[in-house]
Amino acid sequence: MSPGSLGIEIQTDLGEQLVTQNVGEEIFSFAARIFPICRSITGDGVRRTLREIGSRVALEMREVPTGTAVFDWTIPREWNIRDAYIRDGDGAKVVDFAKSNLQVMSYSIPVRKRLSLAELKKHVHTLPEQPDLIPYRTSYYAEDWAFCMTQRQLEALRDETYEAVIDSSLEDGFLTYGEYLHEGETDDEFLLSAHVCHPSLANDNCSGVALLTELARRMIGLKTRYSYRFLFAPGTIGAIAWLARNEEASGRIKHGLVVSMVGDGGGPTYKKSRRGDSAIDRVVTHVLRHSGLTPTIEDFSPYGYDERQYCSPGFNLPVGLFQRSKHGTIPQYHTSADNLSFIKPEHLLESYSVIARTIDIIENDGAYCNTIPKCEPQLGRRGLYRSIGGKKDIAIENMAMLWVLNLSDGAHSLLDIAERSDLPFEVIRRVAQVLQAHGLLTSCATGAAS
Amino acid sequence: MSPGSLGIEIQTDLGEQLVTQNVGEEIFSFAARIFPICRSITGDGVRRTLREIGSRVALEMREVPTGTAVFDWTIPREWNIRDAYIRDGDGAKVVDFAKSNLQVMSYSIPVRKRLSLAELKKHVHTLPEQPDLIPYRTSYYAEDWAFCMTQRQLEALRDETYEAVIDSSLEDGFLTYGEYLHEGETDDEFLLSAHVCHPSLANDNCSGVALLTELARRMIGLKTRYSYRFLFAPGTIGAIAWLARNEEASGRIKHGLVVSMVGDGGGPTYKKSRRGDSAIDRVVTHVLRHSGLTPTIEDFSPYGYDERQYCSPGFNLPVGLFQRSKHGTIPQYHTSADNLSFIKPEHLLESYSVIARTIDIIENDGAYCNTIPKCEPQLGRRGLYRSIGGKKDIAIENMAMLWVLNLSDGAHSLLDIAERSDLPFEVIRRVAQVLQAHGLLTSCATGAAS
Amino acid sequence: MSPGSLGIEIQTDLGEQLVTQNVGEEIFSFAARIFPICRSITGDGVRRTLREIGSRVALEMREVPTGTAVFDWTIPREWNIRDAYIRDGDGAKVVDFAKSNLQVMSYSIPVRKRLSLAELKKHVHTLPEQPDLIPYRTSYYAEDWAFCMTQRQLEALRDETYEAVIDSSLEDGFLTYGEYLHEGETDDEFLLSAHVCHPSLANDNCSGVALLTELARRMIGLKTRYSYRFLFAPGTIGAIAWLARNEEASGRIKHGLVVSMVGDGGGPTYKKSRRGDSAIDRVVTHVLRHSGLTPTIEDFSPYGYDERQYCSPGFNLPVGLFQRSKHGTIPQYHTSADNLSFIKPEHLLESYSVIARTIDIIENDGAYCNTIPKCEPQLGRRGLYRSIGGKKDIAIENMAMLWVLNLSDGAHSLLDIAERSDLPFEVIRRVAQVLQAHGLLTSCATGAAS
Repeated sequence: MSPGSLGIEIQTDLGEQLVTQNVGEEIFSFAARIFPICRSITGDGVRRTLREIGSRVALEMREVPTGTAVFDWTIPREWNIRDAYIRDGDGAKVVDFAKSNLQVMSYSIPVRKRLSLAELKKHVHTLPEQPDLIPYRTSYYAEDWAFCMTQRQLEALRDETYEAVIDSSLEDGFLTYGEYLHEGETDDEFLLSAHVCHPSLANDNCSGVALLTELARRMIGLKTRYSYRFLFAPGTIGAIAWLARNEEASGRIKHGLVVSMVGDGGGPTYKKSRRGDSAIDRVVTHVLRHSGLTPTIEDFSPYGYDERQYCSPGFNLPVGLFQRSKHGTIPQYHTSADNLSFIKPEHLLESYSVIARTIDIIENDGAYCNTIPKCEPQLGRRGLYRSIGGKKDIAIENMAMLWVLNLSDGAHSLLDIAERSDLPFEVIRRVAQVLQAHGLLTSCATGAAS
Repeated sequence: MSPGSLGIEIQTDLGEQLVTQNVGEEIFSFAARIFPICRSITGDGVRRTLREIGSRVALEMREVPTGTAVFDWTIPREWNIRDAYIRDGDGAKVVDFAKSNLQVMSYSIPVRKRLSLAELKKHVHTLPEQPDLIPYRTSYYAEDWAFCMTQRQLEALRDETYEAVIDSSLEDGFLTYGEYLHEGETDDEFLLSAHVCHPSLANDNCSGVALLTELARRMIGLKTRYSYRFLFAPGTIGAIAWLARNEEASGRIKHGLVVSMVGDGGGPTYKKSRRGDSAIDRVVTHVLRHSGLTPTIEDFSPYGYDERQYCSPGFNLPVGLFQRSKHGTIPQYHTSADNLSFIKPEHLLESYSVIARTIDIIENDGAYCNTIPKCEPQLGRRGLYRSIGGKKDIAIENMAMLWVLNLSDGAHSLLDIAERSDLPFEVIRRVAQVLQAHGLLTSCATGAAS
Repeated sequence: MSPGSLGIEIQTDLGEQLVTQNVGEEIFSFAARIFPICRSITGDGVRRTLREIGSRVALEMREVPTGTAVFDWTIPREWNIRDAYIRDGDGAKVVDFAKSNLQVMSYSIPVRKRLSLAELKKHVHTLPEQPDLIPYRTSYYAEDWAFCMTQRQLEALRDETYEAVIDSSLEDGFLTYGEYLHEGETDDEFLLSAHVCHPSLANDNCSGVALLTELARRMIGLKTRYSYRFLFAPGTIGAIAWLARNEEASGRIKHGLVVSMVGDGGGPTYKKSRRGDSAIDRVVTHVLRHSGLTPTIEDFSPYGYDERQYCSPGFNLPVGLFQRSKHGTIPQYHTSADNLSFIKPEHLLESYSVIARTIDIIENDGAYCNTIPKCEPQLGRRGLYRSIGGKKDIAIENMAMLWVLNLSDGAHSLLDIAERSDLPFEVIRRVAQVLQAHGLLTSCATGAAS
């Protein structure tokens, strides 16, 4: 792991291959590439985005036809949009979809009509308290149309007749999502899920899509214990469609993360799974506590992203939500200020490193047995301990060794030991490897993550 | 529930019938009516008080003869008092029972003698640090007599000969208590207990007696799950007598509250039952946390009111203590300052509302099952959710619906959900009713309160 | 217990015999007596120290031959030292072992050579940040030699040729430890262990050795429930040797304390056993919370004194560590400033009192049954309660009686009641004795300490 990330090196093969100094730049670059695309919960924007991901990993695209029942829901008609604008009396475009896809409410039905300012205002969304920002609005399940604009744009409109044009279509088609499986030694899966339904919002969620794409790409060829399922799907309906089509297979998911809004400098924020004490909850909490950042760990609540579906009572999967700033708590949220200048390569690198370290712990946790459980083994004789006694300070590695030896009774995993000693898992694991090499530790069971 | 109470309406039939704006005034009015009566642990003062209650609800009066063994105790002789005074050398009454019944120590034996100031002082109680207040004193189980007076009264006495007269009687008779049972659908009981042994102390406990009388009166005709037993008995010996005569029946008590000192503006204070995690403990804690007041929740301790008996190890009933200011912590406690100006209708209304909401939760808690447990049901389609997505704020009702759906797996009661979501039970219950009406929720078990 | 100790008297026979006002002085006096001896992990310094202890109690000295395998360790060669010095070019002794045994690194091999200042410096330890103090250094398991001196001594050395002489021997011999068993009614043991391997360091650990010697002496003739094993052994290797030779017998240890650094005015500090909830952990925590001192209670960690061995996973004995200032946290630690002026009789008395009260609780805890469990017994009738009701304050003894009666259901020991009521064990036990004398309590089981 690069020195620029979280200060602690992952010294496993896995960690070294996953994290390099340029990861943040590469994630940013891909986020910038998919930023302009006008995505919604269905339509060609999603397909174009998935094709971009597919150019990096062997993504499988799935198409679910309009009208398909998925649990309590029905796949809606497919929405596509070509152009939209408002022209004033002089024929000038005062609002233009070509300049920002946020200016049309997502799923707006086709419209071509002339109307007064008063009539137009019934179909306009603004943010009066953030007068320079365009809000992001949708109306997936109620047929409607609207333009979104800045409060200043609205206030500049004279009282005249306008032409409003939305060249969209809402027709039978498909809902599209993509998935990529990195196969590990076992069928047990680690789900990594990002929503791909938002248009030009950089943090929410070009950042998450790009981060997972880069992670999937870097895992290619890596030997892992778990299989890793990357899911790029429209929010809510996409996750529901996936769960409906993989109801039985979802039982293989042993750990999972929903990844969104990972490019800003806030947080980080982790919301625990509904179970609250899953391995994923403990591992991410541990990684964040030792990240040097100022994390917030929240209990599960049923509002947020697709963890809502994964953690619905009929599934109750061990899936948490990882973000930087918590959704809805920052002024940029769901506005035109969530653009490429809001996300930074260094924050993307930090977020990526958190996930890479989480994977590293999930892969490498395990319980060991001290082979000399009665009294301490003589570490000095083995060159494992400073030989001049009496010094006041004791190095962290010495402490870690003592903790591992003391608690390795088969009942405590390395993560347990890391938590109880308040030392980073990486240090605990490193000394466990050293102790194992010296015959002082033997593997005796799998850890909390199993 | 009236807007003037705790801010949250109880929208159940029960709640609406129990609480109206004028409850506080009615409780105050009844407290004022019984305030002048000179009560003690036996005697006609108790009987008069119980007759006043009986004029409002069909109270059954019980008489337990002097000498009856009740566990480790024996019903004492009955005490009655007609008059008492101290006359100075000029024949002037310097202390007069007719003006305040606090001026004679309760259970004082008859006295009619002339004595010096020095001799008199051996039979005088004052509060030197509160020189304008008369203390409240008793000597139930040691034969004695004394006058209670203000420190200033004492200091004004000249060194002369006084005549001390206490025209009381201590004779074989009865201990009297009253009980009223509101019969519900089941024999399981909710005990509401107030002590009726204190003379003219408004808060301690005319307030509790009046509150429970009004509650009992308003429950007439109400259909409830539990039966509600209202017990008006002298402190300690009265509760012991009731328990001795109802040893087996006490097993029906599933919830209980001792109610005292509920008219001042302090607290509120709730002291948990000895069990510490009874339904009553959880419910009152929940109600108080959402009351807008500044409650104190205390663990059980064996000093206080009749919860001492209900929570003795041989009974260990789930009975807590509800008060405003905690007994013994305020300067008015057990003094002549605990008069009618110390209690207020608005505080009585608040206290009453806490108990009414407690009953409402105990009656209405239950566990439900989400009928669509896999992924979320589509609330928008049913008109249960705002249809324009993307807005930053989410209404409390939406959150409550999501919580109820997410946790209604049969293992979580509505109270569990209210606690975990930190939302008021009333909101949780209201949305549960809505969800049930839409077929999204079915009753599957009873809740924590059962 | 003397008024000068912890404010609360131990009123049991045990407590009165153990603690008198002069205990602190006697412990100090013995610590001063053994302070000058040059101890190490083997050799005559340990034997001389044990003989001093043996002059007070019937200590049994054990000799373990060099080369004996004790778990992962081997008893090292025996080290003895007669003299050591550094002479400058003028023949003046610039460093002299005869003045302070700290000036030679413990276990230094024999040396007699002339060397330059530069060569000498390779064999010198100082404390540059504490330039007036000599550090304490050892090299038990790596053959080496060195002098320890103050930074000022080092800086005063001119660039000339020195003669360095260490007249020591490192030869096959023995490791020596001593143990004394106070036999109680049962074979269950309370282990009290102090390390005897440090040279002239007063607090670390002449204080601990002297405290336990005095405790053992005062227990002679005392009838106790437990047997008390006092172990005086070199740190680490001594405890390991004892455990290796008493592997099966160690199972008798039901409680234990490692005692070190008990003469300074810091702390007190208690580090819990690895189990974390042993009786010893609860009892010492209780004693310290009610000591009037400012204690720190720490969770177990595998770095410290011989609790490392007792709490190794193969033994996992309920042994904690009691100290005043925590090792390694004060500037005097392992330096020449840890001399007799650093320890004080009053602190030794406090430390001794903590241990005496711990023993008193361990000996006297037990669970009782309230003989009148239904409602409260009438305490007033038995003269156990103030007879004039209504006073605002209630004495601590009254509260203690109510707690004992309320919780004495056979499931709560006196220690449980002391913890829950937040009252000192001594008060709880005293009222339990009174209640038992009145037939209100019967012994029904042994307590948490059993």
